[in-house]
Amino acid sequence: MKFVCNQSDLTKALSTVSRAVTSRTTIPILKGILINAENEDFISLTASDLDISIETRINASVSERGSIVLPSKLFGDAVRKLPQGNVSFQENENGNVDIKCLKTNFKIMGIPADEFPKIYGNMDGERISLEKKTLREMIRKTCFAAGTDETRGIITGVLMELKKGMIHMVALDGFRMAVVREKTKNEDEKSIIIPAGIMSEVGRIMSDAEESKPAAPSGEKEGEEIAEKEDFFEILTDGKKAVFDLKNTVVVSRLLEGSFVKYEDILPKEFKTSLLLNKNEIKDSVERASVLIREGKNNFIKIEILDGRMVLTSRNEEGSFRDEIATDQKGDDLEIGFNAKFIADALKAVSDEEIRMEFNTSVTPCLIRPTEGNAYEYLVLPVRLASG
Amino acid sequence: MKFVCNQSDLTKALSTVSRAVTSRTTIPILKGILINAENEDFISLTASDLDISIETRINASVSERGSIVLPSKLFGDAVRKLPQGNVSFQENENGNVDIKCLKTNFKIMGIPADEFPKIYGNMDGERISLEKKTLREMIRKTCFAAGTDETRGIITGVLMELKKGMIHMVALDGFRMAVVREKTKNEDEKSIIIPAGIMSEVGRIMSDAEESKPAAPSGEKEGEEIAEKEDFFEILTDGKKAVFDLKNTVVVSRLLEGSFVKYEDILPKEFKTSLLLNKNEIKDSVERASVLIREGKNNFIKIEILDGRMVLTSRNEEGSFRDEIATDQKGDDLEIGFNAKFIADALKAVSDEEIRMEFNTSVTPCLIRPTEGNAYEYLVLPVRLASG
Repeated sequence: MKFVCNQSDLTKALSTVSRAVTSRTTIPILKGILINAENEDFISLTASDLDISIETRINASVSERGSIVLPSKLFGDAVRKLPQGNVSFQENENGNVDIKCLKTNFKIMGIPADEFPKIYGNMDGERISLEKKTLREMIRKTCFAAGTDETRGIITGVLMELKKGMIHMVALDGFRMAVVREKTKNEDEKSIIIPAGIMSEVGRIMSDAEESKPAAPSGEKEGEEIAEKEDFFEILTDGKKAVFDLKNTVVVSRLLEGSFVKYEDILPKEFKTSLLLNKNEIKDSVERASVLIREGKNNFIKIEILDGRMVLTSRNEEGSFRDEIATDQKGDDLEIGFNAKFIADALKAVSDEEIRMEFNTSVTPCLIRPTEGNAYEYLVLPVRLASG
Repeated sequence: MKFVCNQSDLTKALSTVSRAVTSRTTIPILKGILINAENEDFISLTASDLDISIETRINASVSERGSIVLPSKLFGDAVRKLPQGNVSFQENENGNVDIKCLKTNFKIMGIPADEFPKIYGNMDGERISLEKKTLREMIRKTCFAAGTDETRGIITGVLMELKKGMIHMVALDGFRMAVVREKTKNEDEKSIIIPAGIMSEVGRIMSDAEESKPAAPSGEKEGEEIAEKEDFFEILTDGKKAVFDLKNTVVVSRLLEGSFVKYEDILPKEFKTSLLLNKNEIKDSVERASVLIREGKNNFIKIEILDGRMVLTSRNEEGSFRDEIATDQKGDDLEIGFNAKFIADALKAVSDEEIRMEFNTSVTPCLIRPTEGNAYEYLVLPVRLASG
């Protein structure tokens, strides 16, 4: 194996694929990164923890084809510290790789590539085409609400559901639920459940790629067309795995099997109290209330709705907090308690300036949603307030 | 106690004094911050862990004098989350403090101020006047080299020595030593030993103050004169304590007692090998070599000096590193090993583009110093290389 590539391209690619490297594995080769130099003008780097696999391509001038695995931490650290410019890689007879840049020379012990797991073969399956921006926003607005306790199976996943020209994404953990809905050109009916942690990684990889993307050439018809195509990507799935094809980078995720909660049935349709609120005003107030909140115990805020005002209070042994927000209260007065974090998380995910918060009783869930339509719905269960 | 002050002034002041709050104390009141509102137009905030105490002043409009202690974390978090603008403080009959800003209201349980330790009284002692910028640079260039093992007494301190119109600062940990020298207008002969951790805090407080300082009014004679005065500060010491008077902020440090190492005697005066080096070139190279280094074991780089070149190598079980730097070698060839971190730390502290590195044998210390003069000298002990 012998090739020359650019130091900064390689550094970026290594930081992308490193997201799939786990230190917890008992399979030594999974601590490595596979270099594949099987073509003339590019190489690919691959890492996998078997749940998630990431492969990315960069331009390279390959003079001797080959492939090898290098220990990820040393490989990444060494490349990052190299001078900027061209870096040459050459495999020695004894299986070491010489990495050279000017007078600087790293020699890293390689591991034969044939032990590295194949991340996906010629997969048959269905294709879902989506706008990158749409998926990124949907990930940001749902994944935080998924369960984190891995023994709880299906609720650690995010449901992605295609139905009647719409795409829905749903995450829940038993105390709260996030539902977002977007239009799609896809006409298929299809649903898959992706581990929320992997879905978040996909979002991060998309954001990284977005940041390092060169500005699109303006005023050129051809350039514009290419940019439009690049705004989309495909998900290919065979029911066991999902392949996110982001052009130069491919992410493969295992899927969760089982049936997801019937989320539409849980969403309340009618409300006894409805409030129109400035989102930042209530977000700031909940964050202030949270100053008195300790993780684990006493972690709730009390909300009182009366006379067209919302009064938020919280307390601990050192002090107390009280804030008032004006609203257009429609319906009954109410006194209700919430885990402050669950309300804060939902409000952070919303981009709208105004939102609607809707309630029924002090022991039934509250719904946060847009002033019109149902592009997102956050359901939060209340906590029971001690009487008196 | 009753006063009004500005939220952002208060936030800054709290972040400054919080540096003296320790969570490890067994004295509950030291987890608090003392508010002193004993004057008409300012309040002071004070925190202390008995080793270091910090007091800072901000403008306030005081309508009822008084003082009280508030728990530092809740106090800081609450103020930081308040809306920007004026904040009013009022002590209640039951010893709580009401903190109000528009409709937002925190109530925090106070602790009587008389239990709070007095950080310094009317102290008699000597005064050292210094330029702030000079001290900040001297701190940055020495403190990292001090010992961190608190059982080792005096070497956890930084020596500050006034002698013949010069100020010297020295730190060492038994493996390396940092000496910096600056001119001063002070004619006194004086030396104190300040705990290195506290000295670093003083440096950070000075940097914070520098960043938040409004730009000096330009073109005004008066403005310029004030700015000049503000560039200086005073250290007042009675041999037990040192008071750093930075105008609006005062830091009080306990001093270490005992006699410091006779550092001038340790500094070698003659060398068998002398190299002129580009600082960034060797710094980058040592950082690259460090990629293969694991804390604790096998943490050295090997330096070979021959034929006007410096060859740096390092290795571990996964690979090896080699780099070459051109120098103007004067004197003998040499092969010597160092703890990479000690060389890297010294090179990071130096601001010069070119430096001199000087050696005698493979078992005697190396000296890093300017190409001319002795404004700084870093002494680093070598590690013994395994033969072969």
